[in-house]
Amino acid sequence: MPTLHLPILTQGHFDARKRDMRNIRLTIAYDGSNYVGWQIQPNGPTVQVAVEKAIKRLTGEAASVLSAGRTDSGVHALGQVASFQTESAIPIDGFRKALNKFLPDDVIVRDAEEVPLDFHATFSAVQKRYRYVIHNCRTHNPFLRNYVWHFHQDIDSAAMHEAAQELVGKHDFRSFESHWPNKSSSIRTVKEVTVRRQNFCPLWLDEADRQPSDGNAGEFIWLEIVADGFLYNMVRAIVGSLMPVARGRWDGRDIRRILTAMDRSAAGDTAPPNGLYLVHVDYE
Amino acid sequence: MPTLHLPILTQGHFDARKRDMRNIRLTIAYDGSNYVGWQIQPNGPTVQVAVEKAIKRLTGEAASVLSAGRTDSGVHALGQVASFQTESAIPIDGFRKALNKFLPDDVIVRDAEEVPLDFHATFSAVQKRYRYVIHNCRTHNPFLRNYVWHFHQDIDSAAMHEAAQELVGKHDFRSFESHWPNKSSSIRTVKEVTVRRQNFCPLWLDEADRQPSDGNAGEFIWLEIVADGFLYNMVRAIVGSLMPVARGRWDGRDIRRILTAMDRSAAGDTAPPNGLYLVHVDYE
Repeated sequence: MPTLHLPILTQGHFDARKRDMRNIRLTIAYDGSNYVGWQIQPNGPTVQVAVEKAIKRLTGEAASVLSAGRTDSGVHALGQVASFQTESAIPIDGFRKALNKFLPDDVIVRDAEEVPLDFHATFSAVQKRYRYVIHNCRTHNPFLRNYVWHFHQDIDSAAMHEAAQELVGKHDFRSFESHWPNKSSSIRTVKEVTVRRQNFCPLWLDEADRQPSDGNAGEFIWLEIVADGFLYNMVRAIVGSLMPVARGRWDGRDIRRILTAMDRSAAGDTAPPNGLYLVHVDYE
Repeated sequence: MPTLHLPILTQGHFDARKRDMRNIRLTIAYDGSNYVGWQIQPNGPTVQVAVEKAIKRLTGEAASVLSAGRTDSGVHALGQVASFQTESAIPIDGFRKALNKFLPDDVIVRDAEEVPLDFHATFSAVQKRYRYVIHNCRTHNPFLRNYVWHFHQDIDSAAMHEAAQELVGKHDFRSFESHWPNKSSSIRTVKEVTVRRQNFCPLWLDEADRQPSDGNAGEFIWLEIVADGFLYNMVRAIVGSLMPVARGRWDGRDIRRILTAMDRSAAGDTAPPNGLYLVHVDYE
């Protein structure tokens, strides 16, 4: 009798395992100061390794964690999205708390949810929001050295905002891409870009109860940009190209000129990584 | 003729040098995360060494820098006061900018002024203000890991405030001193202590344009304490003793009991250093 049922049991067990394969989507925040970026690299600690280690400790499985964006060395995230598959039966509500126990204190899982198996953190993303924060103040703040780009000379944030509108739309952003070509296409659609003054720096996970200023006051300048995708160093090259605008040397015509040049050397410098935050990723 | 005048010139030169001995008072902010404290120690980098090195590079002189308070490892300062003597002729307005050029970016001179030669940063201080910040939130914030004490359980900040009033006045604070006796007297006068909720964390040098909440809302709990002097670990022992109050296990009578016990073991644990800030020092 047992031998007769064995193939059926095995088949059933196999099916159950297949049914139990789950896809978990994590929303992650991290202080990128002590990492060489998100993606696994030989030359230093990465956030991906920290997350995969935590998953290994929790589930015993060697998961490959996919992410929405490969943030660079020193770049931060408030809402990075990552996904991984697991056979673990841990209830979804337990993942956040349990993973946070195993993560270093500069990385935190803000949310965990179970998603369909075909969800892919990288390829399912339809748009991302990045933020770049400039601290425009005579004296730099020692507590914010890793979280803003300090710039002590006067900046015209309204001129930056106006010139930045030239970027909105579908363009070849090759001029704002480091090491081109490293993507199959450098055409992206920028859906929105704003440059505003604020009186605070975005170190909070929850900004809901913040009271933003009217956009013209405050010593922090926030550039917010939403696009369907970003090329390597694109936001930092945009910020670097808006600085001559902020200082009155360039205007919107120069941004248009840079776009049409399709040449990285036409654009400004690459702004430092520590002011950059991956804020949010949208999926269908 | 020259030989005749030489002693006079020498005398004049000597007088000039004596007249030129100046006492400089610095107001300093620092992120204490990467230091083993203010005072020179063999086991790691200290803020005092960083400041003395900057002075050496600027003036060429090996100055001894006195300070208002010897902050511990990991403790921060928004308004530490330090003083040193120099023969340098650098205009006082130049000191701030020039020293900041030579200081690491987690230490900054906020202000420099010339003070009478009898000013002594340690002994001339008449009162100091410390602040302790607790982040009372379900999830810790990875960006604030070095700047607050994260506590995820509910805290009754009003009860803390009420019980803390027992500390106001002239008392023997031996129960709140680590390694007693390490001062000639453990009697201090606490002039003011408040515990309030705020919706922000004090990482800004200039708090003037902040909009503090009414004291009952926000996920940050600020303890502010002003006294004519502080014993070793006193603020952290006070915070540790107010936590059982915050959790409803103790009340003001327990704080009174701890004070009268004159025994460190009667008080609560020592709160971690990273939530502590030396905010301000008053001089006559």
